[in-house]
Amino acid sequence: MSEVMHTLNVELGERSYPIYIGRDLVADATLLRQHLAGRQLVLISNETVAPLYAQALVKALGDQQRFTRIELPDGEQYKTLESLNTIFDQVMADGHNRSTTFVALGGGVVGDITGFAAACYQRGVDFLQVPTTLLAQVDSSVGGKTAVNHSLGKNMIGAFYQPRAVFIDLGTLRTLPDREFAAGLAEVIKYGLIVDAPFYAWLKANMSALLARDEQALAYAVERSCAIKADVVARDEREGGLRAILNLGHTFGHAIETRQGYGQWLHGEAVAAGMVMALALSAQRGWIEPAEVSTLVSLLEAAGLPTEAPDDMSSAEFVELMGRDKKVIDGQLRLILCRDIGNAEVVDDVSTAELTALISGSG
Amino acid sequence: MSEVMHTLNVELGERSYPIYIGRDLVADATLLRQHLAGRQLVLISNETVAPLYAQALVKALGDQQRFTRIELPDGEQYKTLESLNTIFDQVMADGHNRSTTFVALGGGVVGDITGFAAACYQRGVDFLQVPTTLLAQVDSSVGGKTAVNHSLGKNMIGAFYQPRAVFIDLGTLRTLPDREFAAGLAEVIKYGLIVDAPFYAWLKANMSALLARDEQALAYAVERSCAIKADVVARDEREGGLRAILNLGHTFGHAIETRQGYGQWLHGEAVAAGMVMALALSAQRGWIEPAEVSTLVSLLEAAGLPTEAPDDMSSAEFVELMGRDKKVIDGQLRLILCRDIGNAEVVDDVSTAELTALISGSG
Repeated sequence: MSEVMHTLNVELGERSYPIYIGRDLVADATLLRQHLAGRQLVLISNETVAPLYAQALVKALGDQQRFTRIELPDGEQYKTLESLNTIFDQVMADGHNRSTTFVALGGGVVGDITGFAAACYQRGVDFLQVPTTLLAQVDSSVGGKTAVNHSLGKNMIGAFYQPRAVFIDLGTLRTLPDREFAAGLAEVIKYGLIVDAPFYAWLKANMSALLARDEQALAYAVERSCAIKADVVARDEREGGLRAILNLGHTFGHAIETRQGYGQWLHGEAVAAGMVMALALSAQRGWIEPAEVSTLVSLLEAAGLPTEAPDDMSSAEFVELMGRDKKVIDGQLRLILCRDIGNAEVVDDVSTAELTALISGSG
Repeated sequence: MSEVMHTLNVELGERSYPIYIGRDLVADATLLRQHLAGRQLVLISNETVAPLYAQALVKALGDQQRFTRIELPDGEQYKTLESLNTIFDQVMADGHNRSTTFVALGGGVVGDITGFAAACYQRGVDFLQVPTTLLAQVDSSVGGKTAVNHSLGKNMIGAFYQPRAVFIDLGTLRTLPDREFAAGLAEVIKYGLIVDAPFYAWLKANMSALLARDEQALAYAVERSCAIKADVVARDEREGGLRAILNLGHTFGHAIETRQGYGQWLHGEAVAAGMVMALALSAQRGWIEPAEVSTLVSLLEAAGLPTEAPDDMSSAEFVELMGRDKKVIDGQLRLILCRDIGNAEVVDDVSTAELTALISGSG
């Protein structure tokens, strides 16, 4: 039986939307159909997730006037303008108009590309998120950042475009491979680090329950994560300021992902190593105790995540790749550092010398 | 000497922006630089317009930290995702970040693709419009509709994204070929038909001055057109209702353009023939006098515009192509008809039989 365990709301005026967290939501016809405006549907998934959940979801969504099902290959390397083009070709060929609804069933790649396709198709159609990875559930499905990658940088082409609703079915985590589950935990840990020290303490105490995929523990961790993200996004939708704190570890992480080539390191893995670097830099500035870096390393190791950048990645490479980050303004890198656990801030005075000392020291 | 003759404002809250209409604005350094937020610039133009005005504009915009100049081939057939990709490749390679400004110098194709590129690049950067065709000055540069075409339909992939400012230099009309000038007049005439009977009367009285490109007549016609469009857009930015009246003649026109292949009929030419069809349908319903159709035909002929669809285009082709229009909702075509000259409205009860009677009758 399906059950909604938590309902959150992302408060964005006329673009506000609910996040439902619960059990067996992919089959909850009553809930899903409340959020369908028309009778045209484009279901976008990938070849890994679709065989597991598409049938139940399609049945729950009901009969449509027009129905197009698209399965992308699985992987970050397919989050491209070319995949987007494939989507438009099929949706156009099937004659979908402005009253269609795009539904994303899958992880962050499927959600990001589907959201961007929905943002652009006929200048914007409805879309729903059904995230099936922990990373997508706690991060990419909430907040309206959509994008595809460019060969020279991740998420360089995209839009801020909010879904109409997010349906988080915790049951889908049962089929998630351990490595991807761990990658999602990196973002969960991030929420504790940036704004919620008690949640960070809870994570240290409950990591084994989470790794055992205990439903109650998962429901709590996902709810806290989404609540924090929804709150930050509601206060700064288009990343004018505050929202940037959600990027703790991400500028370092993006550099690692770009250097290694998409698909080698998972996003969450790169963020994990990046968060250690961000905390080490915070400690290097004397803002936090060095022991906090060790505590984070232990927690990430318990979660099965990497805690260091690739050995052979030089400080020069970091400096060059980080300089391409979207958060660079007038040549000045902006990084997220921690004043304290649960208290992150945007810093725009990190020098190349400081970065080099950090990376050489940790290399 | 440059001179601003009119300044209008498009009232969209925090996304409001000015439209400057005047003489020699492409060289007005003081005015242009007021609207540059950073010191990075991407100038997008085409191979026809760039040799005429790019040098003056680049000089007026001043020295930049990063400067990328892109010249697209000239023509609607290049308003594609592929051209967009070319833009992203160059802008990424040159390392532009979020504080860059995209500047569109050219007609509607350059403006639409530049605006869409600016909307997507790093999820949105500033852009300025410097429209150099009459069509772009009175229509596409104002209102924030940006897009590229899909092989199965015009403007199918795009965004609502407003510029920071629009600079209309009437001097650029001196180099505009007659055929393109006439195409722009079709949209000017449209504004009279939909909301402003006195302006429609003025156009009938002043068509010869406009065709002689008299500066005072042009300034008045462009100002009235932009003012009407700005007012409609301010009241309905995302085409929830009212804004649709700007599409008088466009659903018929798009069908003609798609049937003939992009680039065969100019957009304004197709709209001209489409407006005659829309008025003929209004007359067929008894809403306006048949004489008004003849008056419009005479005015369009005086402007050098076509007044009929291609002879060999069947009513079945119209019905099929119009069914793909973005304004179709749940299978029901919505058309703009005139209750009276200067009083257009959205109509959603036009039957296939009514369309067939219209097209067979006029064929």
